[in-house]
Amino acid sequence: MATAQSAIRVQADTAPRDGQAYNRKPKLEAASIVIFGATGDLAARKLLPALYSLHKNGFLTSDFAIIGVGRREMSDEQFREQMRLALAKFRPESTTDPEETTKFLARIYYHRADFTNVVQLRLLRDHLEALTASLGMPGNRLFYLATDPEYFEAIVEGLSEADLVAPHDAVHWTRVVIEKPYGHDLASAKALDYHVHQFMREDQVYRIDHYLGKETVQNILAFRFGNAIFEPLLNRQYVDHVQITGGEIVGMENGRGGFYDHAGALRDVVQNHLLQVLSLVAMEPPATMKACDISDAKLKVLRSLSPLRGKDVEKSVVRAQYTAGQIEGKPVLGYREEQGVAPGSSTEAYVALRMGIDTWRWAGVPFLVRTGKRMARHGTEIAIQFKQPPLSLFRTVECDGDQCDLTAARPNVLSFRIQPDEGIQMTFSTKRPGMTLDLQSVRMEFCYDRTFHFRLPEAYERLLLDALRGDSTLFMQSEELLAAWEFATPILEAWKRQGPQNLATYAAGSWGPAEADRLLEGCAATWRQP
Amino acid sequence: MATAQSAIRVQADTAPRDGQAYNRKPKLEAASIVIFGATGDLAARKLLPALYSLHKNGFLTSDFAIIGVGRREMSDEQFREQMRLALAKFRPESTTDPEETTKFLARIYYHRADFTNVVQLRLLRDHLEALTASLGMPGNRLFYLATDPEYFEAIVEGLSEADLVAPHDAVHWTRVVIEKPYGHDLASAKALDYHVHQFMREDQVYRIDHYLGKETVQNILAFRFGNAIFEPLLNRQYVDHVQITGGEIVGMENGRGGFYDHAGALRDVVQNHLLQVLSLVAMEPPATMKACDISDAKLKVLRSLSPLRGKDVEKSVVRAQYTAGQIEGKPVLGYREEQGVAPGSSTEAYVALRMGIDTWRWAGVPFLVRTGKRMARHGTEIAIQFKQPPLSLFRTVECDGDQCDLTAARPNVLSFRIQPDEGIQMTFSTKRPGMTLDLQSVRMEFCYDRTFHFRLPEAYERLLLDALRGDSTLFMQSEELLAAWEFATPILEAWKRQGPQNLATYAAGSWGPAEADRLLEGCAATWRQP
Repeated sequence: MATAQSAIRVQADTAPRDGQAYNRKPKLEAASIVIFGATGDLAARKLLPALYSLHKNGFLTSDFAIIGVGRREMSDEQFREQMRLALAKFRPESTTDPEETTKFLARIYYHRADFTNVVQLRLLRDHLEALTASLGMPGNRLFYLATDPEYFEAIVEGLSEADLVAPHDAVHWTRVVIEKPYGHDLASAKALDYHVHQFMREDQVYRIDHYLGKETVQNILAFRFGNAIFEPLLNRQYVDHVQITGGEIVGMENGRGGFYDHAGALRDVVQNHLLQVLSLVAMEPPATMKACDISDAKLKVLRSLSPLRGKDVEKSVVRAQYTAGQIEGKPVLGYREEQGVAPGSSTEAYVALRMGIDTWRWAGVPFLVRTGKRMARHGTEIAIQFKQPPLSLFRTVECDGDQCDLTAARPNVLSFRIQPDEGIQMTFSTKRPGMTLDLQSVRMEFCYDRTFHFRLPEAYERLLLDALRGDSTLFMQSEELLAAWEFATPILEAWKRQGPQNLATYAAGSWGPAEADRLLEGCAATWRQP
Repeated sequence: MATAQSAIRVQADTAPRDGQAYNRKPKLEAASIVIFGATGDLAARKLLPALYSLHKNGFLTSDFAIIGVGRREMSDEQFREQMRLALAKFRPESTTDPEETTKFLARIYYHRADFTNVVQLRLLRDHLEALTASLGMPGNRLFYLATDPEYFEAIVEGLSEADLVAPHDAVHWTRVVIEKPYGHDLASAKALDYHVHQFMREDQVYRIDHYLGKETVQNILAFRFGNAIFEPLLNRQYVDHVQITGGEIVGMENGRGGFYDHAGALRDVVQNHLLQVLSLVAMEPPATMKACDISDAKLKVLRSLSPLRGKDVEKSVVRAQYTAGQIEGKPVLGYREEQGVAPGSSTEAYVALRMGIDTWRWAGVPFLVRTGKRMARHGTEIAIQFKQPPLSLFRTVECDGDQCDLTAARPNVLSFRIQPDEGIQMTFSTKRPGMTLDLQSVRMEFCYDRTFHFRLPEAYERLLLDALRGDSTLFMQSEELLAAWEFATPILEAWKRQGPQNLATYAAGSWGPAEADRLLEGCAATWRQP
């Protein structure tokens, strides 16, 4: 036990004005936040709104400055006006207190620069220095690379040449947040990584995966290692299989097609998000909750993934594209008809994998991972299905009101719902009330909504805050990413060799192609529909 | 798995008229139900209302007859009128359909007899034979001994001598339900048992413990052996201790004092109810769910209880009497002032025991069992508290709104609430939403009320039905009772030697004497307040 039995008051939170409770606020040092790609979609939709919420809820110190960097010509005032509109859209509450919002916007500045031009980045440095001097702020800097990934290498190099990265400054810190994708295969990720490490220390790099900012994802660790009763069950002796689903209903709207057709589901969702989630579910208990220990534990899982190469890919991976269908009652196009998608594209809009983890704990337990666009429902879920009891002592019924049917025994399932409606659910069998000892499957649920009556912080709020306070626990370390690419790349290569061969189809609005069912062989289950 | 994956319709229940759903109705043979002590409290409060509900919900065949036997002179009509009033009180719904109720009452008869007089019991036999002949019913008979226990031996012998027990009848059955208490110590229970077995087979004897008729008690088996995830945890490796509480707020009202002062809490509640419940929680998986296999498994637990003798009693058992106090805001008398209680009585109105079970599974795990009258709340509960995780990786907070305090880590607790509000609850730690990875203890609950939207059958309904269909699973076998007495009797003897020495006190309306706290030594817990 960490502390004595008697309760010790630690940090009395002030009641927040808008009912959005935040508790246990970490102390931050004043810093400049420099956003490359400030005129882009991510900055307007996620980054500025997240910074606004952090500010409003008292997480930022009063000493902060946000400097948007873009290639367009724009004044501070014009940029502020753009951001005001973005806040009105993505944080409507900002319009109810315009005075406070104006105060926040007054700390935002704009700087025009060509990301690849060192001379211009030196001007950015001068601007930053003048700005922080005039504001009386220290030289701590967070650079956020929210640009197209093709600029990542140039910006990193340019920042270094413009003396904006200070790997040896003992007083002030410089950190660089790099958005995804971090490479598009093993070779490119290695090259990017080698490049980045030429200019900065690994502990200055924050590779973002917004999944890791979600409450339920973080809760996997709390759930597993903060309780004594789950960990003994999470191994090959008791687990039948694990299903990780990342279902999306969106297709290629909003111009997504051009980017997506060059990426595909494996790169876009599995290699980063779902493998990260998988590593949290499957990892050994870390020695501490420090970033390095958690990263080591995740890395061990990623390095233990049974490789899928050549023939294995045909056997254990199913890729597919959606054909025309219906989403929420409305007709939608097939993948190849979408804007930005090549007519003969063989890019997968869906992928399902049967994976194995070659560790003492998990050997032989299938990890079934699946994601796709235009699926029946939007939802990300991890479901751990346990084996049946060794002996079947009861009858199981399934009832609709008083109409009861005999049915097969239902296994215990522990599921973490990551989005929407974050929560944890446990399926178990109980006696159906009445005069016979028959079992019926019921669910115990724990919902954030109903338990904690306040809004959960958005992933980007948490991650920006962590980068500002120098906590890299929820970011991906270089070696994790490379290990994930090491797993994913042979699959990409096998597909490249096959071309459009073995590319299945599914109707938009369905749960994916029938071909994926064979991946469940030997599991007492069908694909879940979370 | 018992059945194929595809659902097989078994028994389509008819929708019950009063919304009290009963499902999967067992088939009964027509039988006469003979209640000895029919003018007493139990018959009016529990037995007739239970039979009424069984009838109303279609569990009884249309061929049934209920014969009340008492020493008072009374006509059938007078008895029916008494029972109509009892139903109006304990099954108010009976008044809304007087025609149906009259039909039920028409199957009730009265027979005056001195229980100990064989001649009169022969007249009862004649009456029964004439009655069943006139009703065209078979000779199946259920005798229910709802009398003062002093008559049990005489009635059993009388039934036999009057040829009313037919141990060798291959066509019709005769069963005898015996109410508690079954003996008052090991010697008397052995004597009664020997006596009973002279006149009937063990499988004709149904020793009632109404706790076993409760849904949650039956659910202990379903929960443990119908799920794969609990059983691996229920052993000395993971369980810190188990608390079984049977709290009552009632005192000695309704003339209970006279009886109770000769019994005490150990005899009245622990020796039967709580030891039965304990044996269900602690037993090994039975080979099947048949009565004999379950009884064997329970028996193994009862025979493995670490004996408490002589000095052990002082160390591991605390007995107490309540002093004057308050119950629900109203002043109440102390135990020794109650009506029917001897002024210098040393009978315990409260007992707490620290028990051990010497099996491979449970050795070293304290089972803390406690019951008392005039306690703070009415509630029976089994709580299994698990050990803490081996490593404390997190901080735990306890929050009141946004005010958070640091606190000691909270253990996982699995609890079965037997009454009131039957249900199952699991306490576990989860991440408190927000910017830090702190744990907070939350509860997942499964309530019958909210899951199954119908009234649970009362314990007596279930037990009467089981006796009628010849299922003795929820009754106590002779050997179980003797094993329980073998455990309890040395404690009673030690107390007898001590007299009023070491008899603690507690204020009525409290959770018991402070002396009981020492029984928790080494457990990371206080007594629960269910």
